[in-house]
Amino acid sequence: MKGFVIVNNLGGQYEDDTFTDVTAQIFNLFTLTAVTTVMKELYETNPTQHRWFYDFVRTNKPTDRKRFLHILQKENHELAERVMVTRLSLFAKWIKNLDHAEMYKDLSDQNLELMRERLMETVKWPNDGTDTNTEMA
Amino acid sequence: MKGFVIVNNLGGQYEDDTFTDVTAQIFNLFTLTAVTTVMKELYETNPTQHRWFYDFVRTNKPTDRKRFLHILQKENHELAERVMVTRLSLFAKWIKNLDHAEMYKDLSDQNLELMRERLMETVKWPNDGTDTNTEMA
Repeated sequence: MKGFVIVNNLGGQYEDDTFTDVTAQIFNLFTLTAVTTVMKELYETNPTQHRWFYDFVRTNKPTDRKRFLHILQKENHELAERVMVTRLSLFAKWIKNLDHAEMYKDLSDQNLELMRERLMETVKWPNDGTDTNTEMA
Repeated sequence: MKGFVIVNNLGGQYEDDTFTDVTAQIFNLFTLTAVTTVMKELYETNPTQHRWFYDFVRTNKPTDRKRFLHILQKENHELAERVMVTRLSLFAKWIKNLDHAEMYKDLSDQNLELMRERLMETVKWPNDGTDTNTEMA
């Protein structure tokens, strides 16, 4: 239980109260999701442009959203705008339906699930003649 | 950044209204932030354990949070619990201060900034004898 005591004064350790990096990563994430969405749309509507965009994404990894969009804008500004509009629209949809309490519960449940796994792996079941472990699994 | 290679399945249209993958990536992100936080704490308080954790993270990339925590739990369950408690605590802090409208505005501003850049690059400034382009830059 030592971990719980130490982590209590966590506030002082993670110094960025505004979570700037988290926001940046979420924007990267929505840019990636927009790229995927536009790619799929092109696959169905415009094979030539899909091929071009597919090659572009392979060459210019969209993990750095600013650099990616900057280059895309130079090479195909219509596609760049389409990705930008799509990411903002997806983001708006996401925040509209976002349930903080549910997300918190999900993450908390994932922690508990991992701790439960460990419990199951470390506990020695009493041998009463039946294979209890198998039954539990 | 590697954690965000959800582009793996490029072509999968975005039809998931519950944004399951976005949630998963955000949890990955907070797990990574927790790893960084714990690493920093260990650096200051326990050099031996810091060295061990540093090597562990190098070998077992924390980009897949479930696999990472599963293995960490087997090898050092106290550190695994510390990372889990830390990620939940950081997440709670984040949602407490999250301003959706501000985030939306930020993303929207980034779109506008890119479009403005393009405008500045494509517009031919009238040559009135002075080097307007240089003045603008």
